[in-house]
Amino acid sequence: MSLDHTAKGVYAIAATPFHDDGRLDLDSLDRLTDFYAEAGATGITILGIMGEANKLEAEESLEIVRRVVTRSALPIVVGVSAPGLAAMRRLAGESMALGAAGVMIAPTPALRTDDQIRGYFDQAVEAVGRDIPWVLQDYPLTLSVVMSPGVVRDVIQANPSCVMLKHEDWPGLEKISALRRFQSEGSLRPVSILTGNGALFLDFEMERGADGAMTGYGFTDALADIVRLSAAGEREAAHDLFDAHLPLMRYEQQQGVGLAVRKYVLQKRGILTSAAQRKPGSVLSAPARAEVDYLLARVARHDPRAAL
Amino acid sequence: MSLDHTAKGVYAIAATPFHDDGRLDLDSLDRLTDFYAEAGATGITILGIMGEANKLEAEESLEIVRRVVTRSALPIVVGVSAPGLAAMRRLAGESMALGAAGVMIAPTPALRTDDQIRGYFDQAVEAVGRDIPWVLQDYPLTLSVVMSPGVVRDVIQANPSCVMLKHEDWPGLEKISALRRFQSEGSLRPVSILTGNGALFLDFEMERGADGAMTGYGFTDALADIVRLSAAGEREAAHDLFDAHLPLMRYEQQQGVGLAVRKYVLQKRGILTSAAQRKPGSVLSAPARAEVDYLLARVARHDPRAAL
Amino acid sequence: MSLDHTAKGVYAIAATPFHDDGRLDLDSLDRLTDFYAEAGATGITILGIMGEANKLEAEESLEIVRRVVTRSALPIVVGVSAPGLAAMRRLAGESMALGAAGVMIAPTPALRTDDQIRGYFDQAVEAVGRDIPWVLQDYPLTLSVVMSPGVVRDVIQANPSCVMLKHEDWPGLEKISALRRFQSEGSLRPVSILTGNGALFLDFEMERGADGAMTGYGFTDALADIVRLSAAGEREAAHDLFDAHLPLMRYEQQQGVGLAVRKYVLQKRGILTSAAQRKPGSVLSAPARAEVDYLLARVARHDPRAAL
Amino acid sequence: MSLDHTAKGVYAIAATPFHDDGRLDLDSLDRLTDFYAEAGATGITILGIMGEANKLEAEESLEIVRRVVTRSALPIVVGVSAPGLAAMRRLAGESMALGAAGVMIAPTPALRTDDQIRGYFDQAVEAVGRDIPWVLQDYPLTLSVVMSPGVVRDVIQANPSCVMLKHEDWPGLEKISALRRFQSEGSLRPVSILTGNGALFLDFEMERGADGAMTGYGFTDALADIVRLSAAGEREAAHDLFDAHLPLMRYEQQQGVGLAVRKYVLQKRGILTSAAQRKPGSVLSAPARAEVDYLLARVARHDPRAAL
Repeated sequence: MSLDHTAKGVYAIAATPFHDDGRLDLDSLDRLTDFYAEAGATGITILGIMGEANKLEAEESLEIVRRVVTRSALPIVVGVSAPGLAAMRRLAGESMALGAAGVMIAPTPALRTDDQIRGYFDQAVEAVGRDIPWVLQDYPLTLSVVMSPGVVRDVIQANPSCVMLKHEDWPGLEKISALRRFQSEGSLRPVSILTGNGALFLDFEMERGADGAMTGYGFTDALADIVRLSAAGEREAAHDLFDAHLPLMRYEQQQGVGLAVRKYVLQKRGILTSAAQRKPGSVLSAPARAEVDYLLARVARHDPRAAL
Repeated sequence: MSLDHTAKGVYAIAATPFHDDGRLDLDSLDRLTDFYAEAGATGITILGIMGEANKLEAEESLEIVRRVVTRSALPIVVGVSAPGLAAMRRLAGESMALGAAGVMIAPTPALRTDDQIRGYFDQAVEAVGRDIPWVLQDYPLTLSVVMSPGVVRDVIQANPSCVMLKHEDWPGLEKISALRRFQSEGSLRPVSILTGNGALFLDFEMERGADGAMTGYGFTDALADIVRLSAAGEREAAHDLFDAHLPLMRYEQQQGVGLAVRKYVLQKRGILTSAAQRKPGSVLSAPARAEVDYLLARVARHDPRAAL
Repeated sequence: MSLDHTAKGVYAIAATPFHDDGRLDLDSLDRLTDFYAEAGATGITILGIMGEANKLEAEESLEIVRRVVTRSALPIVVGVSAPGLAAMRRLAGESMALGAAGVMIAPTPALRTDDQIRGYFDQAVEAVGRDIPWVLQDYPLTLSVVMSPGVVRDVIQANPSCVMLKHEDWPGLEKISALRRFQSEGSLRPVSILTGNGALFLDFEMERGADGAMTGYGFTDALADIVRLSAAGEREAAHDLFDAHLPLMRYEQQQGVGLAVRKYVLQKRGILTSAAQRKPGSVLSAPARAEVDYLLARVARHDPRAAL
Repeated sequence: MSLDHTAKGVYAIAATPFHDDGRLDLDSLDRLTDFYAEAGATGITILGIMGEANKLEAEESLEIVRRVVTRSALPIVVGVSAPGLAAMRRLAGESMALGAAGVMIAPTPALRTDDQIRGYFDQAVEAVGRDIPWVLQDYPLTLSVVMSPGVVRDVIQANPSCVMLKHEDWPGLEKISALRRFQSEGSLRPVSILTGNGALFLDFEMERGADGAMTGYGFTDALADIVRLSAAGEREAAHDLFDAHLPLMRYEQQQGVGLAVRKYVLQKRGILTSAAQRKPGSVLSAPARAEVDYLLARVARHDPRAAL
């Protein structure tokens, strides 16, 4: 199964489950893998920023790839961003050999000019191999690399193996419109656009032309419904469901805190045994946990899946 | 009327109205000043980042101060942040002479260490005068200066004329709790905390101990109601109103786009003649205007003030 | 006298003299203006970053322009970079009316993409007036805006009134070569390139094709000699003089300390009455002053002008 | 052999030799290891930023550690900075097991406040083990983390296993003086201070109290002489030798270019077979190589070791 530009729906950004003592929790990883499929995800992205990828040793990363690829029938995308190209090439090659559908590459934070960005992806794609399907991650808030629509187009056009954009610029609605306009004008080939940013703008991102979401919000099932409703033209129903979840989505989308919220929610949903992050990680305070509980109760009035 | 640590409620961050050709629009400024009072604001903050302060010439800034101070019965806070202390001292002195209640000072973006931050505010307060009440603006996302709770406390304790914190760290809930804990422990004197960040976390900020909001969301009246309900302990009602506005608040809180949305909403409410920003500024695309219209219509189901 | 692309030699970046109490010291400014001419400068740049421009009030800035333009027979370039275009337009217009030869514009620090940089200069040049000759300042280390050679070319080609590049990228030798190559290929029109960075690479910058220096090193006379020798093909002599000054140049080129060193040297040369900076500014420690004295004594073995 | 606070002299920051095709060049590594000892280095630091550490696979890093530790009688410091603590712990543990004398840890680039910095080192030291001697790397220009002298003291005092500061703040002379003053006041325990920044301020750093240098300038032997002369109080001789090398040191100390210069010089000295960097890396242009050749010839007038 190989990733291509027709990808749609929801690619769940997977958390990496740990025991309280920091060891990998593979049983929870299995449950999480199953959950994403049952929730209606059309793909899973592992070893992303949210997956605490940079806290893992190389063998652990491969163990996660092997476990998820083996267990899931969904296409698996593996985040391979790394400070050096050697590590990137190795993880990409081994992941594809294990059955991954593609990899995801983010720009390295030091990049500034358009030339530097184009040059970096040329080198990165050469390193991982020009035949491996890959996702271009555009995430300025965390990576501090700003790619104009024109540069995104340049990178996609120069690299036929780039099949998807993980769009999480903020603000980003006009960027989606610009890219889709490039395509209708014929200057950009087809590419899948899945959006991130904790789904905080998913309602309008779909209406601007996104193909779905790639994010780690704890209610993958709700995201799948929003994407489905929006794609089916059921605008009011899509917005109603989106608005019901927005207070919790907004709470999750806090830099440095978001992952703790997500793991807490996934634990409450019975998927993760522990909400622990590997060090260095953040911990939810008692007031924060109470706030999430309160938000869940309010979401549950509209969406019974939040009644935990 | 002088600002002090007992300030509560909603301080509206005022937009600066321009004609389409970029000239100041003083008639709209008068309407805006009146609107804030009618909407239940307890104060007005002018010449902030959102007020396009750095696009104004010195005389224009003073004209705005004079106009608003003269017209309004509310306490007026004047943003005086500037690259140099001479300009800051001058605007602060002239504003206070014209009747402002206090000034607001942000850290200059180059600051990194705790010592640098403490040193900067010492110099800034010496420059504007140690008798002028001032608001400490804590806005890391835009200013790239990160102040720990301990440093905020240091700055407040070292400067008796600091009477308020404009809190817009993100995430910021734990910071409010930390500061209030400092106070209950006796290591921090009383200080007003009003929150920014487009009110995106106002629901829980109030519950963590904030005294209100200082932000420019187009529905000052709704913010005033949320603050009032929350302060009165009507938790469900506060959250219901907050949640109704959240989709629009979220849309406004987009870096670089937010001001265009706010001016568009204020124009639709009949307050601004033009939604124009002075150059360089952003302009709402037609799809973006349609999205705001749609959001207004949805908010209006819960809050008739949004039926425009 | 109007700045054009044939400018060569040394444009001195002028310090702004203050009395110990922070008032402008106009007598010292007169002496400094005279000194630059006697030292062989071919132009003077005032109100730059090193000129503490952002600590001045608007009237003071104009007073400095008037004083220097009136006194000097050299072309005067005025730094007009400001957070807002209104202030920039005003200072540029008034400076040209007073007799300045041109203005200097730096990119505003928030710019990231090539499109943003091109767009900013388009707006800035429209604001100051498309008929005013201007210098493009390229200073990534302090401004955090990185312009590729291609973008520098784009900005110059799109703006006929841009006649000079103040080059202070670091490293920057290849950039000079790239721009000169653009010109020999016919894709870039003639433009003067003067280099900054405290002259730390002036030896090779000249050999790569620079027309001279624009920097504030305290020995303008030595810079003028180095440029003259290098332009005349006297390579060894140019390097010998350069190397003799390099230990002191290197000492001056310390972020945040450099201006204090320069003012101290200019004071020792009898030009400035006080080495004071307006607040907030740095002060040389006693060991630092002794180090500069020691360096001067060592330079004086090769260049008697350093025997102070 | 274990690193402690009495370390003095020159710790060479080792380049990592590659063949032209990117494979590790272990023969050159052996020659380099021998060269450093012959040149008078008192220690060697491997896998630093300059060592292209982030381009290596985990096995390669260990191979380098094993090779150098086995071959050299000098204490070996291993750079273990990594995005995650798991990788850091593993490399540190394995390096010490192989016979390294200590490790070097830099702050992770996202750190801003003093609390964050102190907290990070607490976690990092816990991860690598509180019994492993380590070097605190203070390099704001590249890492964008600014540590005040007080924070450096806090980190050292809180972590008894910290035995050395690799000082490369810029400017940094006052920081050395401040730390030595802390020690004479009794608030800071003994710690070795070796300085970096390409030795660009080594002359005065020694006089301010540094114990030596830790940097990768191609003439380790000259650095050793400068440190020795300065420590012996032969001030003029130390400065004379320093000044002779400064034009080349300055040329090497160009961000992104410096490593290419160093490898080129080490190749010319007969130590490296190839000057290649592993991708992504920079390559010296023909004019740049000619400039280095010219600088070498000029240095050789004073120091025959540069006659290559």
